Amino acid sequence: MENFTFYSPTFFAFGKDTENDCGKYVRRFGGSKVLIHYGGGSVVRSGLLDLVKASLDKEGIDYVELGGVKPNPRSGLVYEGIDLVKKENVDFILAVGGGSTIDSSKAIAAGAVYDGDFWDFYQGKEIEKALPIGTILTIAAAGSEGSPNSVITKEEGMFKRGAGGDAIRPKFSILNPALTQTLPAFQTAAGATDIIAHLYERYITNSVEVEVTDRLIEALLLTMKHETPRVIADPDNYEARANIMWAGMMAHNNSCGVGRSQDWNSHTIEHELSALYDCAHGAGLAVTMPAVFRYCMDHNIMRFAQVAVRVWGCQMDFAHPEVTALEGIKALQDFLISIGMPRNFGELGAKEEDIPKLVEVLCKGDGREGTISGFVTLNEEDCTKIYKMMV
Amino acid sequence: MENFTFYSPTFFAFGKDTENDCGKYVRRFGGSKVLIHYGGGSVVRSGLLDLVKASLDKEGIDYVELGGVKPNPRSGLVYEGIDLVKKENVDFILAVGGGSTIDSSKAIAAGAVYDGDFWDFYQGKEIEKALPIGTILTIAAAGSEGSPNSVITKEEGMFKRGAGGDAIRPKFSILNPALTQTLPAFQTAAGATDIIAHLYERYITNSVEVEVTDRLIEALLLTMKHETPRVIADPDNYEARANIMWAGMMAHNNSCGVGRSQDWNSHTIEHELSALYDCAHGAGLAVTMPAVFRYCMDHNIMRFAQVAVRVWGCQMDFAHPEVTALEGIKALQDFLISIGMPRNFGELGAKEEDIPKLVEVLCKGDGREGTISGFVTLNEEDCTKIYKMMV
Repeated sequence: MENFTFYSPTFFAFGKDTENDCGKYVRRFGGSKVLIHYGGGSVVRSGLLDLVKASLDKEGIDYVELGGVKPNPRSGLVYEGIDLVKKENVDFILAVGGGSTIDSSKAIAAGAVYDGDFWDFYQGKEIEKALPIGTILTIAAAGSEGSPNSVITKEEGMFKRGAGGDAIRPKFSILNPALTQTLPAFQTAAGATDIIAHLYERYITNSVEVEVTDRLIEALLLTMKHETPRVIADPDNYEARANIMWAGMMAHNNSCGVGRSQDWNSHTIEHELSALYDCAHGAGLAVTMPAVFRYCMDHNIMRFAQVAVRVWGCQMDFAHPEVTALEGIKALQDFLISIGMPRNFGELGAKEEDIPKLVEVLCKGDGREGTISGFVTLNEEDCTKIYKMMV
Repeated sequence: MENFTFYSPTFFAFGKDTENDCGKYVRRFGGSKVLIHYGGGSVVRSGLLDLVKASLDKEGIDYVELGGVKPNPRSGLVYEGIDLVKKENVDFILAVGGGSTIDSSKAIAAGAVYDGDFWDFYQGKEIEKALPIGTILTIAAAGSEGSPNSVITKEEGMFKRGAGGDAIRPKFSILNPALTQTLPAFQTAAGATDIIAHLYERYITNSVEVEVTDRLIEALLLTMKHETPRVIADPDNYEARANIMWAGMMAHNNSCGVGRSQDWNSHTIEHELSALYDCAHGAGLAVTMPAVFRYCMDHNIMRFAQVAVRVWGCQMDFAHPEVTALEGIKALQDFLISIGMPRNFGELGAKEEDIPKLVEVLCKGDGREGTISGFVTLNEEDCTKIYKMMV
């Protein structure tokens, strides 16, 4: 196991009706003038936004609003948010929505107290200072409610990039599984796929002697394998949604990823798909992961055999571990298809003829120098082959 | 799953040589005058205390010392520490040692800013305010490095009682597995048993639909099952000790215990043994747990069958689940014996003739009213039977 530090100081309020306490938590964590940041549609229609405002009013906390966050959130709205925060002397950002809204809020929180262009953080500069952030989560997926990360797409060039730093870990996150019950099945499944990907990206490691984190990741994968089909079959299953929601947070606050190298090649390769086609990130991951894993598994067959046996219930083929490894990857893909995820470029809405463009942006866009790195280092030829495997 | 809040704001620095940064962390978390609290013996002999002082000196941080913490830490030293802290205007407590030292530090930290008798907290009053605490852990066991709990024994009456509150969660904890390599095998095994007990106490629940936390607990039990024998066989196995150390923290910071009722009857019943005989808490738990579980398993046979299958690898007897449940309890006990833990009163140094006295203090001591409560409620007759099962 490698040396590490771990710091997850977010306060979590989990369960039914917890959104009604958001005003109390904003006050506890020092907010006096709030920016409520959200997408639109369902947060407004469901009455959640009104509940949030009522809770802030009850505490006598002033607020301004900025809606309009879209999936794969854009830099344009972040700039707008930063201007609004500065103009209105906002001192606390309250994200009401899913990962896109939280990530956009984190970008605003960091950009509002930074003299330069906030995009610097998405080109590798660590975020060391930000306004405090609270979240009210409406979909179990990105894990942004407990993570120090944010992903934003820059309109010029459509670069989708990540930033991070402990300063953007939320001060509090409110997780009410009932708020996710109205999600369409496709979004629920795409969210579950994102959670599963966060687990695989940590599982696929070059570190050795990491039994405790291996086991924790497997525990969360087993949970997702058990609970996701229950929610797809019955969207009102509060209990299954509750298990998924806590699994989604634990999958990405890094308590199960410490002390080990991580992969993230699947995420990096997928980001170009959702940036270009504006597809759901989870749907893109469902197509990307099996291809990446099949392409890279020879680098450590036993790692893929282990997850096949421990999570997918495959019988170990001791004479031919690669058979078991492949069986596990197939089990993962079959599972994702069974919950309604796409299996290839066609079902995702991606086009084979775009592959050169995808590879160009992936390997050379926005400062990259011809490769991406994770479990293995992949060059343009590797990435071309991987995209072709998805066709 | 039940509604819950979860808040674990401790900063963890994990790995080799991390103790050298303690001065930096004391400064980061606001300390300017430190009480270094420790047991004695090994912390001094190993040179760890000198390293700690050097690190504080380097940061220009002033300190006073209080050694002498014993296993099953006593109230007398806590009073002494509170007086010292007040006299010397200490604003930060640095615990260097194991669970006993950390628990004693927590009691001092809470008592130093409280007008009444600190023992009030150990009779049920929540700790809402305390001086900040940092820890340098020297044994993986109690989980106090990441928990909001403390257990102290009051000399008058030898009452061993627990207190809690988010205010006594450490600000930082330094976990260097190498510091645990010099522990005798018996202490290592007793620590591992305590960790296993923290997991079982959470696993044995009356809550339903708690798959995610079930799976996380099982993950940590599987880790302990795999890594503990490796450390007993080879005390210098850094990697196995590292896996155990992180498992020990995760077992007790409650991320795997949220949203579910917990048991804690084994801990409560054991506390009277370590209070009366001053035996190692883990050794007492090794004798207590199998008896408690056999006595209580009829309350929910399937729960005990589940852990038998998922952790101990038992084959499910679908016609007779109670056979599987018992097989799992036997597997747990056999495992604990295999790592050097006692199997009964005799090996522990406890006496059958003391049972009436144990039951009296357990069920009626220090304000209790005839029963203890957890997975099931146990009266004096139940507790007498359980202690007799341990003979």
